[in-house]
Amino acid sequence: MTHPSFPGAVRTGIGTDVHRLVPRSDDDPPMQLAGLSWPEEQQRLEGHSDADVAAHAACDALLAAAGLGDLGSNFGTADPAWAGAAGVALLGETVRRVRAAGFAVGNVSVQVVGNRPRLGARRTDAEAALSAAVGAPVSVSATTTDGLGLTGRGEGVAAIATALVVRQEPEEAP
Amino acid sequence: MTHPSFPGAVRTGIGTDVHRLVPRSDDDPPMQLAGLSWPEEQQRLEGHSDADVAAHAACDALLAAAGLGDLGSNFGTADPAWAGAAGVALLGETVRRVRAAGFAVGNVSVQVVGNRPRLGARRTDAEAALSAAVGAPVSVSATTTDGLGLTGRGEGVAAIATALVVRQEPEEAP
Amino acid sequence: MTHPSFPGAVRTGIGTDVHRLVPRSDDDPPMQLAGLSWPEEQQRLEGHSDADVAAHAACDALLAAAGLGDLGSNFGTADPAWAGAAGVALLGETVRRVRAAGFAVGNVSVQVVGNRPRLGARRTDAEAALSAAVGAPVSVSATTTDGLGLTGRGEGVAAIATALVVRQEPEEAP
Repeated sequence: MTHPSFPGAVRTGIGTDVHRLVPRSDDDPPMQLAGLSWPEEQQRLEGHSDADVAAHAACDALLAAAGLGDLGSNFGTADPAWAGAAGVALLGETVRRVRAAGFAVGNVSVQVVGNRPRLGARRTDAEAALSAAVGAPVSVSATTTDGLGLTGRGEGVAAIATALVVRQEPEEAP
Repeated sequence: MTHPSFPGAVRTGIGTDVHRLVPRSDDDPPMQLAGLSWPEEQQRLEGHSDADVAAHAACDALLAAAGLGDLGSNFGTADPAWAGAAGVALLGETVRRVRAAGFAVGNVSVQVVGNRPRLGARRTDAEAALSAAVGAPVSVSATTTDGLGLTGRGEGVAAIATALVVRQEPEEAP
Repeated sequence: MTHPSFPGAVRTGIGTDVHRLVPRSDDDPPMQLAGLSWPEEQQRLEGHSDADVAAHAACDALLAAAGLGDLGSNFGTADPAWAGAAGVALLGETVRRVRAAGFAVGNVSVQVVGNRPRLGARRTDAEAALSAAVGAPVSVSATTTDGLGLTGRGEGVAAIATALVVRQEPEEAP
């Protein structure tokens, strides 16, 4: 049992991520986003690991809340162990590190900003996938930018996340 | 009385929104933003309902914090009851649903990002309008992007919001 | 000792900022970002005060969390006392005002979004500088936007911050 009844017991973190949408050839794996595979999409997200911007934003928000750095400092390109890792795998390892540092995850909120895919129909599936990786509630929402900016022009997909973590009582920390 | 003295008692949510600035003809209603009408503005925000990006971002932040989906899943275009609804009306209904799910609203913070209108002179009016709709403190701030990006070029106005909700004790939940 | 065991005891705030990257002549001071000076950079950030977007986003997040307005209403261009002030100076004064209003700072999370400078190597220095100014933990992270948008094109640097503040018990407020 934890008691966040002191200043700094509950901590906030924020994270954002953007990856480029590129055409998907037959040899490419399907788009990965918000913990789900999107085989119907004609495009994929390009980038480090599987480019799951929602999972990456959630990782950065959790790491920041716990004061543990960011994706780059934890899973940098110099570390071959995490090259090409799935976003949900990074998220699971992130949570393991957050807990090892003496925090419980309160919840995470992630918003996906982009024209494609249409997240609405699978929004609750995405929440289930990310919540399973985190072991705490992850809310997933989606919005667009009215055709404006990098996401509105369909150049990429962005995600933004906030997380709350709760410091365990000193005697309970590992 | 609620006691957020357990992990997950306090929950975070984030939401963003962008709508396009378009010329306003004499027949158009004035720009709506942050719960206020801006009759002096020569442009208006275009979009679903009244395109009040600040109110919409606040709705998404609150819904996400409570794990209740997003604007699209709650007030989708398929539901004629909310077609053309004012942002503050959506915000009031959002809070009703958040409370019905067993949460109290802690507070909301909304930042408006754009060149127009100049929010500063009416910032406290905007806070009063949105706080009245939410029944809890809503902070409103404003910034610009130094002439860069979609808001800097005056193509649209963006808003970003975070919300905290507090789960009521189980015996107090409806 | 504070006990955030009532709704609204813990409050969230969000803030963002963007400033333009411009060439730096020999007469210009070095780029200021995240509480640090970056003398190796060939560019600087242009704008009000030292254009430290990370410090400014943190100020706006803290002011919003405490319901105290924003940078413009607190340190507007009309007030010569703050013209050209360093971001960390604004941050220190912001925290003084937050505390005077009866809040303790829980923590702050800031993410810097941009191609330059490469924050990773000095990320912990930035956290130390900003945490010293705030008197509470400030997490600093960095990300890029995959070459897209205003930061991806190198036109400017953005920052986004969230803050938590905790209201002191009524009898403890100043």
